[in-house]
Amino acid sequence: MNANTFGNNFRVTTFGESHGSAIGVVIDGCPSNVEFDLPFIQSELDRRRPGSTRIGTKRNEEDKIKVLSGVFENRTTGTPIAMIIENTDQKSHDYSSIKDIYRPGHADFTYEKKYGLRDYRGGGRSSGRETAARVAAGALAKLILKSYGIEISAAIRSVKDIYIEGDFIPPFKAPLYTVNSTKDNEILSLIDKTIQEKDSLGGVIECHIKNVMPGLGDPVFNKADAVLSYAIMSIGAVKGIEFGKGFEATKLYGSQNNDEMDENGFLSNNAGGILGGITNGEEIIFKAAFKPTPSIAKEQKTIDKNGNPVKIEIKGRHDPIILVRALVVVESMAALSILDLLLENKKYV
Amino acid sequence: MNANTFGNNFRVTTFGESHGSAIGVVIDGCPSNVEFDLPFIQSELDRRRPGSTRIGTKRNEEDKIKVLSGVFENRTTGTPIAMIIENTDQKSHDYSSIKDIYRPGHADFTYEKKYGLRDYRGGGRSSGRETAARVAAGALAKLILKSYGIEISAAIRSVKDIYIEGDFIPPFKAPLYTVNSTKDNEILSLIDKTIQEKDSLGGVIECHIKNVMPGLGDPVFNKADAVLSYAIMSIGAVKGIEFGKGFEATKLYGSQNNDEMDENGFLSNNAGGILGGITNGEEIIFKAAFKPTPSIAKEQKTIDKNGNPVKIEIKGRHDPIILVRALVVVESMAALSILDLLLENKKYV
Amino acid sequence: MNANTFGNNFRVTTFGESHGSAIGVVIDGCPSNVEFDLPFIQSELDRRRPGSTRIGTKRNEEDKIKVLSGVFENRTTGTPIAMIIENTDQKSHDYSSIKDIYRPGHADFTYEKKYGLRDYRGGGRSSGRETAARVAAGALAKLILKSYGIEISAAIRSVKDIYIEGDFIPPFKAPLYTVNSTKDNEILSLIDKTIQEKDSLGGVIECHIKNVMPGLGDPVFNKADAVLSYAIMSIGAVKGIEFGKGFEATKLYGSQNNDEMDENGFLSNNAGGILGGITNGEEIIFKAAFKPTPSIAKEQKTIDKNGNPVKIEIKGRHDPIILVRALVVVESMAALSILDLLLENKKYV
Amino acid sequence: MNANTFGNNFRVTTFGESHGSAIGVVIDGCPSNVEFDLPFIQSELDRRRPGSTRIGTKRNEEDKIKVLSGVFENRTTGTPIAMIIENTDQKSHDYSSIKDIYRPGHADFTYEKKYGLRDYRGGGRSSGRETAARVAAGALAKLILKSYGIEISAAIRSVKDIYIEGDFIPPFKAPLYTVNSTKDNEILSLIDKTIQEKDSLGGVIECHIKNVMPGLGDPVFNKADAVLSYAIMSIGAVKGIEFGKGFEATKLYGSQNNDEMDENGFLSNNAGGILGGITNGEEIIFKAAFKPTPSIAKEQKTIDKNGNPVKIEIKGRHDPIILVRALVVVESMAALSILDLLLENKKYV
Repeated sequence: MNANTFGNNFRVTTFGESHGSAIGVVIDGCPSNVEFDLPFIQSELDRRRPGSTRIGTKRNEEDKIKVLSGVFENRTTGTPIAMIIENTDQKSHDYSSIKDIYRPGHADFTYEKKYGLRDYRGGGRSSGRETAARVAAGALAKLILKSYGIEISAAIRSVKDIYIEGDFIPPFKAPLYTVNSTKDNEILSLIDKTIQEKDSLGGVIECHIKNVMPGLGDPVFNKADAVLSYAIMSIGAVKGIEFGKGFEATKLYGSQNNDEMDENGFLSNNAGGILGGITNGEEIIFKAAFKPTPSIAKEQKTIDKNGNPVKIEIKGRHDPIILVRALVVVESMAALSILDLLLENKKYV
Repeated sequence: MNANTFGNNFRVTTFGESHGSAIGVVIDGCPSNVEFDLPFIQSELDRRRPGSTRIGTKRNEEDKIKVLSGVFENRTTGTPIAMIIENTDQKSHDYSSIKDIYRPGHADFTYEKKYGLRDYRGGGRSSGRETAARVAAGALAKLILKSYGIEISAAIRSVKDIYIEGDFIPPFKAPLYTVNSTKDNEILSLIDKTIQEKDSLGGVIECHIKNVMPGLGDPVFNKADAVLSYAIMSIGAVKGIEFGKGFEATKLYGSQNNDEMDENGFLSNNAGGILGGITNGEEIIFKAAFKPTPSIAKEQKTIDKNGNPVKIEIKGRHDPIILVRALVVVESMAALSILDLLLENKKYV
Repeated sequence: MNANTFGNNFRVTTFGESHGSAIGVVIDGCPSNVEFDLPFIQSELDRRRPGSTRIGTKRNEEDKIKVLSGVFENRTTGTPIAMIIENTDQKSHDYSSIKDIYRPGHADFTYEKKYGLRDYRGGGRSSGRETAARVAAGALAKLILKSYGIEISAAIRSVKDIYIEGDFIPPFKAPLYTVNSTKDNEILSLIDKTIQEKDSLGGVIECHIKNVMPGLGDPVFNKADAVLSYAIMSIGAVKGIEFGKGFEATKLYGSQNNDEMDENGFLSNNAGGILGGITNGEEIIFKAAFKPTPSIAKEQKTIDKNGNPVKIEIKGRHDPIILVRALVVVESMAALSILDLLLENKKYV
Repeated sequence: MNANTFGNNFRVTTFGESHGSAIGVVIDGCPSNVEFDLPFIQSELDRRRPGSTRIGTKRNEEDKIKVLSGVFENRTTGTPIAMIIENTDQKSHDYSSIKDIYRPGHADFTYEKKYGLRDYRGGGRSSGRETAARVAAGALAKLILKSYGIEISAAIRSVKDIYIEGDFIPPFKAPLYTVNSTKDNEILSLIDKTIQEKDSLGGVIECHIKNVMPGLGDPVFNKADAVLSYAIMSIGAVKGIEFGKGFEATKLYGSQNNDEMDENGFLSNNAGGILGGITNGEEIIFKAAFKPTPSIAKEQKTIDKNGNPVKIEIKGRHDPIILVRALVVVESMAALSILDLLLENKKYV
């Protein structure tokens, strides 16, 4: 695992900036002879694509995936699979006004501290656009996991302080893809109000992974939950993650929190499917905290490259809430994590 | 990063089981010519050592560190540093009654699913004892970080539902090492009551990292917060982690959560010192959720190796609350993370 | 280091098959702010390009490099640099006659044993065409090394049993790029004769690396010569490598082979610039053995996929001798090796 | 692969200096449930141990292996296996006279250039003693390979200019372990004469690996021969390696060198068992060039730390020829390479 590569076995390297000529991904370590379902991969990308609803940015990228290598007669060959998405709608001129200004809540300041220079036309590698490459790889991972019966789904559990109680019931419904639709109207009103106020919203995404065999993950460093945390925390706006009962577990007694067993298996799943870093065969459940989108049209204080204080109102096409489009990104990173752990375990492959 | 090795640059490989002849660590990638302060390393191990207070297990290990290589005339040589701690107080016979039984909340079940066999005398690599090796490595990392002015400290923010409001004020006081002592008596009473009830407690540990230079971490996968999450989630009992405002940030508007700047720098630190995965020069702040210790003397339902339901009361020496001894483990994993990111950034080394 | 990635610091991942839509490379770990000299990179690719002389294949690829990411305003940004070369002259139909036949001396048989399927239109990843991606990366590595004064050059030392005595004198001359031109006519005659006989030739390439600072490489596994051996042996037709005196050193006494020193430095360079795996500041010198090109028009015995014996005459466009085009590949792999070792050594970067 | 770790799957990390308190190895990635044959491991170490014959150094180390972790009831547990060998016969005072002097042909000069300091009591990590740790790991690798029918043996093919023609016939005979005994007397005379002259000898070791299944290795970077080259070149005195016909192959026509096939398989094995980087099921054959031992009692010119020219006669216990003791090191590194490639190939594990 390093700067731009995820995974030890199914190694996913992404490349490309939001305003370069293309973004893309190379997958090394994909088993040979896997059926390559390009329409499914494209459909996953479409879930992430901007421009579809009122709650997403208006940037209109087609996000058409193009396969350069590693696939022959619709099957993977075992060699690196390279896929690219050309950037067709960059509109660089939108960004010139913020060329030397650090947007609050963005990586502009830290990026420049790290590299000493910055492609000011957009967020560079920090752009959410980079996640399209992860989704392409994640979609392929999902296809392989499906052959093991493993299924991954994510939905919105809360938006700002609107927490949706109750079951997690797929398939989730447009346009919000909440865990269940009981509070959709309330949330849609909040979104409309927030747009009017030139502000933005965050929330919590919940993800379930079904039918994972017991025995994946390691007892020391490559714990299944550690790998998933690394994967999910590597998504731009995520500020926290918890498994099973998570932070609530700290408020229970051991006798309440331990998952007892009888001849039919576990009697509860407070652990969220992982014990001592190794999957226990129960559903893996985690929640991720997404901060409100940092790009807002409201005026904010910041500084420019020379340290001078300036005011900024971020124009352009930005999401008031990123959660809906982030669902497939969460699922993709979860898929890449689980597949990588599965391929590590020689018993199953 | 893999099963038993942490880090890309300061590579820490731990080995050893709780009931083998020794546990240990090999550190590869330590710069040469670093002053090797063995008494400090030993003092860090002593913070983790069992048997010192009423709130810790009575297992009495001396945990004396022994250096096998990589140090010459009190300086590191740039070659692998191997350190071991001999296991002197294993008392294997304590465990024979649970040889074929899966302890609830433990890795026994998953461990056996993974490996097909298990050293039934203890938790094997899943034992908390393995973290002593991490503390030895983390202490060395702290020494190196200190030469850059970087300081790391962790304290208890909550125990069960007792949340300690207010500032995080080091140095923290024995015996609880809470963020401040306002609720120590209340917590100590809770611990006594819990021991009597043969139960256990969890809580939240907060960690601050001071004086980290901006520019550490990567914009895509090796985000500073992703690496720290991986590191902290790899500690046995941790079920969640959050940075800065964390899950609370999801309840704010973007205009509230963004950290604005002026000529004096950041006006707030909701981000917890990391923006877009890269350190911004502010204090890094995170919280980790520790579940209640799974080993309890209270009767619990479980199964044996053959799937038969059994009742279990875990005898032996176990902590009613692991938080105090876990503080140095949290600090150590944070130190290993930050040092690894620092060594990646050629500008500073 | 793994299947398709070379290097720990300057990590080069290649992708693409000879008959897919493109081959390419992603470079992760390139320092930011390096001047990106695209014409130089293209000129290096042109050295490897087929179709230029009578001694090369007639396949006429333009091998035009296209940069997808990681470069902004002609400087590297520190993010992954993706470059691709589209395959414009695949002529798949040339290969249909050998679809189910294993070409002697080729990877066809082993490739199918490994993957269970094979892109029969060419050598897939085993094709020499894959090396174009390495040359693109190697050219960038050379540019960075040049800023440290390091220069790499390779030339032909022998062809079949024609060994060219004497000095290694760059710049080397077209069309053969031998270490010196004393035997060019003899070699050109041999090549003509070999083409008429529908056969092929091998030989030895010698490579010199100048101005490498002392201290690169490691004393145990990542020895500078071990890394270079791995790199050079990963070129398709290479069957051996030796450093300095190499196999001849085995015939000397220790007192003859040791490089003595006086106040002016080393008195000889039998070691070839590397002592105990670490560079000593002298010129690094190695020789690589290239077997004769396996693709020949002469009739050979082989088998088909079903194990039936068949005769094969390989039609199509093939090099009677690969050495000339291989020179830039050798230099490129040497450049990637030395740069990776240099970036590992924090003292110099 | 990095400074002190070999392998991606069966990851072997060695530590320890020749004059520290112990040397050792940690093996991560060993499958669980492998029978752990400690006497075999010890017997392999004994093959490398100094002091047994007139042709070896008189340093009398017992080299007794001690297992610290990863083995329970004589089976591997799947967790890291740590083994150490205590240094019982360091005699540091032997070396004090050369404290500030760079021994010709040794890593003293380059080591100091790299690290800026040096454990002057011996070669540090550059000492041949480090290879004992590799032999311990290699012995375990051999045990696992044996369960697949794979056998590895190495023997001496030449000493100085005495080349032993003819077959490679195991088991090889003491004291020289040549490929066959036809020239043993001649070689023993040469050794005696060389000892009298205070000089040293090199030679060529040949290694055969039997019964490797086809399909191991990768077509691009992790070629089986590239991995073996890296492994063998990482042994201190090795200056060259070749596979199958090796450098001789450069003198053949393609039609002579290609290994043709018929229904019974390959008709020759010029390739040495590897085609396009992937094993073809034939015997893997390679030769390694060992330079003459650099430590000689004869007077040599060198310099001290301050650059002043000095004369040196190396006293102490040194091998006039290292080849016999190196055989098990070559076999061990070959075993680690093949096992690592085998574990990479999910089809076989």
